Amino acid sequence: MKLLYCCSALLLLFILAPRACQAGNILVFPTEGSHWINMDILLKALHSRGHNITIVRSDKSWYITDNSSYYHTYTVQVERSLDQKLITKMMLGTIEFERGTLPWVSFLNTAVGMLSMVVDVHNIIGEYASAILDDKELTRILRDSKFDVVLTDPCWGTGVILAKYFNLPLVYNVRWLIATESHLSIAPSPLSYIPITGSGNTDKMTFFQRVNNMVFHLTSQTHNYLVVKLVYQKLCEKYLGPDCDYGEMMLDADIWLMRVDFVFEYPRPTVPNVVYMGGFQCRPAKPLPQHLEEFVQSSGEHGVIIMSMGAFVNELPADMTNKIAAVFAKLPQKVIWRHKGDRPATLGNNTLVVDWMPQNDLLGHPKVKLFVAHGGTNGVQEAIYHGVPVLGLPLFFDQYDNLLRLKEKGGAKLLTIQTVDKDDNFLKAVQEVLNEPSYTMNMQRLSRLHRDQPMHPLDNALFWIEYVMRHKGAAHLKTGSYRLPWYTYHSVDVILFLAGAVLLMLLTVFILIRCLYTAVCKQKLKHD
Amino acid sequence: MKLLYCCSALLLLFILAPRACQAGNILVFPTEGSHWINMDILLKALHSRGHNITIVRSDKSWYITDNSSYYHTYTVQVERSLDQKLITKMMLGTIEFERGTLPWVSFLNTAVGMLSMVVDVHNIIGEYASAILDDKELTRILRDSKFDVVLTDPCWGTGVILAKYFNLPLVYNVRWLIATESHLSIAPSPLSYIPITGSGNTDKMTFFQRVNNMVFHLTSQTHNYLVVKLVYQKLCEKYLGPDCDYGEMMLDADIWLMRVDFVFEYPRPTVPNVVYMGGFQCRPAKPLPQHLEEFVQSSGEHGVIIMSMGAFVNELPADMTNKIAAVFAKLPQKVIWRHKGDRPATLGNNTLVVDWMPQNDLLGHPKVKLFVAHGGTNGVQEAIYHGVPVLGLPLFFDQYDNLLRLKEKGGAKLLTIQTVDKDDNFLKAVQEVLNEPSYTMNMQRLSRLHRDQPMHPLDNALFWIEYVMRHKGAAHLKTGSYRLPWYTYHSVDVILFLAGAVLLMLLTVFILIRCLYTAVCKQKLKHD
Repeated sequence: MKLLYCCSALLLLFILAPRACQAGNILVFPTEGSHWINMDILLKALHSRGHNITIVRSDKSWYITDNSSYYHTYTVQVERSLDQKLITKMMLGTIEFERGTLPWVSFLNTAVGMLSMVVDVHNIIGEYASAILDDKELTRILRDSKFDVVLTDPCWGTGVILAKYFNLPLVYNVRWLIATESHLSIAPSPLSYIPITGSGNTDKMTFFQRVNNMVFHLTSQTHNYLVVKLVYQKLCEKYLGPDCDYGEMMLDADIWLMRVDFVFEYPRPTVPNVVYMGGFQCRPAKPLPQHLEEFVQSSGEHGVIIMSMGAFVNELPADMTNKIAAVFAKLPQKVIWRHKGDRPATLGNNTLVVDWMPQNDLLGHPKVKLFVAHGGTNGVQEAIYHGVPVLGLPLFFDQYDNLLRLKEKGGAKLLTIQTVDKDDNFLKAVQEVLNEPSYTMNMQRLSRLHRDQPMHPLDNALFWIEYVMRHKGAAHLKTGSYRLPWYTYHSVDVILFLAGAVLLMLLTVFILIRCLYTAVCKQKLKHD
Repeated sequence: MKLLYCCSALLLLFILAPRACQAGNILVFPTEGSHWINMDILLKALHSRGHNITIVRSDKSWYITDNSSYYHTYTVQVERSLDQKLITKMMLGTIEFERGTLPWVSFLNTAVGMLSMVVDVHNIIGEYASAILDDKELTRILRDSKFDVVLTDPCWGTGVILAKYFNLPLVYNVRWLIATESHLSIAPSPLSYIPITGSGNTDKMTFFQRVNNMVFHLTSQTHNYLVVKLVYQKLCEKYLGPDCDYGEMMLDADIWLMRVDFVFEYPRPTVPNVVYMGGFQCRPAKPLPQHLEEFVQSSGEHGVIIMSMGAFVNELPADMTNKIAAVFAKLPQKVIWRHKGDRPATLGNNTLVVDWMPQNDLLGHPKVKLFVAHGGTNGVQEAIYHGVPVLGLPLFFDQYDNLLRLKEKGGAKLLTIQTVDKDDNFLKAVQEVLNEPSYTMNMQRLSRLHRDQPMHPLDNALFWIEYVMRHKGAAHLKTGSYRLPWYTYHSVDVILFLAGAVLLMLLTVFILIRCLYTAVCKQKLKHD
């Protein structure tokens, strides 16, 4: 009997242990800010499964620290870097612009200004690539390291160039490809029901919304095309030879680990090498630190509201934070607010301002009733996982569109940044989401759907990274359609050929009938 | 310590037990032949997980027996049925036609003949639907049974009508939708790299292959359209009201359990509610019955060849089987041949003719070196699972295209039925596949790829059937794109509108410039 127990215990250990996998050698080119927070979760999980992780970073990196217990770094010297200052400038500019307090700015001016800023950001990233590939000693070391795979976030394009330079399989941790939602490049995306980020459309559009969607698509594609041409294609030609095509190269990744799922994203076409790992960072809540738990418990039956504007945003304008703090002060709920700027003058006793908060653990706490959020993908997926309704204050990038997806599903209310401090908008919105049960019920339904998966999205992501290492790529899952010229892809040549053939046939028949008719008429005339 | 063991043992039991799921109530409308063999595997697995299974069948059913230990049946009386005679007639006709021994048959004649035969088959299926829905007592019983889901194979269209009639969620066990490959209807399918079944194309096509692909597509779509219009739309209007649209209804299933995977199928776009379960019927080989094991072992180092032409085909023409048997007799290998017709006169001592064989267990036997097969999806997926190279003798339906996929991946050689008994074709082909190691190596590579999945395809299929039962559908995974008119779907209206707007703008500018120019000229003339 004891033997049986022993065997069971051993078998249990075997089943619970991570799936056996040969230790792999992974080269990572990560991105900054919330994108790094995402990547870091994957790296920790990969390390815990025995893989060696090597990161190439710049000496001016904002989030990525030098060597850690779970990765090794190579640091290159660069002159410029992406940092909080640049992000704050973008955010404040967006808020001022959206509030309409700026003097008249022409559409063209704004578009050119935004484009030049984005090109500049990518030029900074491009400098990293040059710093790496011009360093012959570093490239030798990297080549000799015999990596199994490159893991990168392709909203920055350097990782792709590294993978091709070292001729390695490539896995993306992805939602954005340069400046557009990545599905648009890799999967067929009929614009009739695929809303373009920034257009404010959903997957159900009127005629004029579809027109607007098409215009947004053309604009963002031009945008992307210019960034690729002006930055990455040049790098590509310099380091990979004159014939390389960056546009094609960036679509040639083996596996795309997409940071969404179809509880959050509208249903849309996809391709076999896209793996959905939305919510991979979510996990059951751990107990809160004692002071937070005490604060949360002190809320009694009213519960707690938490507010965060994400990793990129440290400061909101003072008049806005004062207004928000004043509203919070009026509420019977307790509030935990992640806020780094000056302490608002109107702050009530019920509001705890913190530099950082364990967001996932708070969202999973039964006392938390409402999440006031900017709408980053991470926060939205965590809200879905824990079934907490959201009051959205989107600032920029994809935040409005992320929140719109929740709103469409009945789990969120949205306020625009230009109206949040007008009248009682914020107070009314908070009360509506707290008091109307449908918000919570809908979020809980989404939570049930999201959690009901054959396996946890993080395990799925790890499986596919290791799959690429085991099989040295995943060529059989790539459609290769991106290698076809557009007229071939859309069968324009075939349609023209067939239409021509049908026309020629009709013309021949027409001429034959006409000849026959003329001949018969002549014959008749002769006889007459 | 003992307590720890006890806990471990209990936990082990919990982990190894099938995932807890409330017993569901499943209504099944199955198809015949090899399609039933597929469905039957799913039904047994569903039954073993505690679900109640009810089948509606006809009294003339070919494969589906009355009540069994794992399902309950309701039988309706019909006049006609699909049977072996019809299939044999189709098969012999195809062989004669492909051999070119028939008098000249025009393309139009053949197409019309095939269409009328297919329409007739679907009319037989349509009669089942009428027999069920005209029986008020049966429909009352079915309605009162409170089913959770309808499971059907939509190559026959009645299951869809039943699901809509009883307003139930719908799951497909599918590869064919009426008469076309189902991806073509549900997922975007650029004809530039998606080969149409029957065209003989692969996913890499020359210009003229793409023209041929387009013609095949137009033909098969017309074919499908006519079957839908002539059979199912009529039924639909009769039982579901005049406004129903069968074409839209059949695309509105919750989950499509697709009987392929991307080791077999070319990579192509898909949609979120398509779940790939290719190879779900495959499992490690069980020991063979003693007499078979002895026969197999007697092959020594030469190994064994197995041959089967599938569930639908009982007889090949006698001259063909004689030729095949004569070739087998010359080989040092042993042969196991599933063959139901007359015993070939030329049969050698090394060949064992059987009525039925444990195909999966034989393919998994290390002595089996070659599989001579007709190329049904089941057999091809089993060959991939076990890594056995294939010599293909395709007859009809998708068989050529299935085998072509294996050939393209280096795992199979193909012979057409019109050349198999010419010269030494068959002998040479058998020897080539046996002696050229690349065939086996490629099949073993495919086998490794196929088996390397996060979970077994059957478990995945069961998960999604139960998912639909748990959530009463999977609406959030359906794109709904099939509800858009074609010109909306392809944004034709938007493109025309935008092109019109641009033209109008250009025209206005042109007219303005012209007016200005005329005015300036006039002014100048005046001054001169």
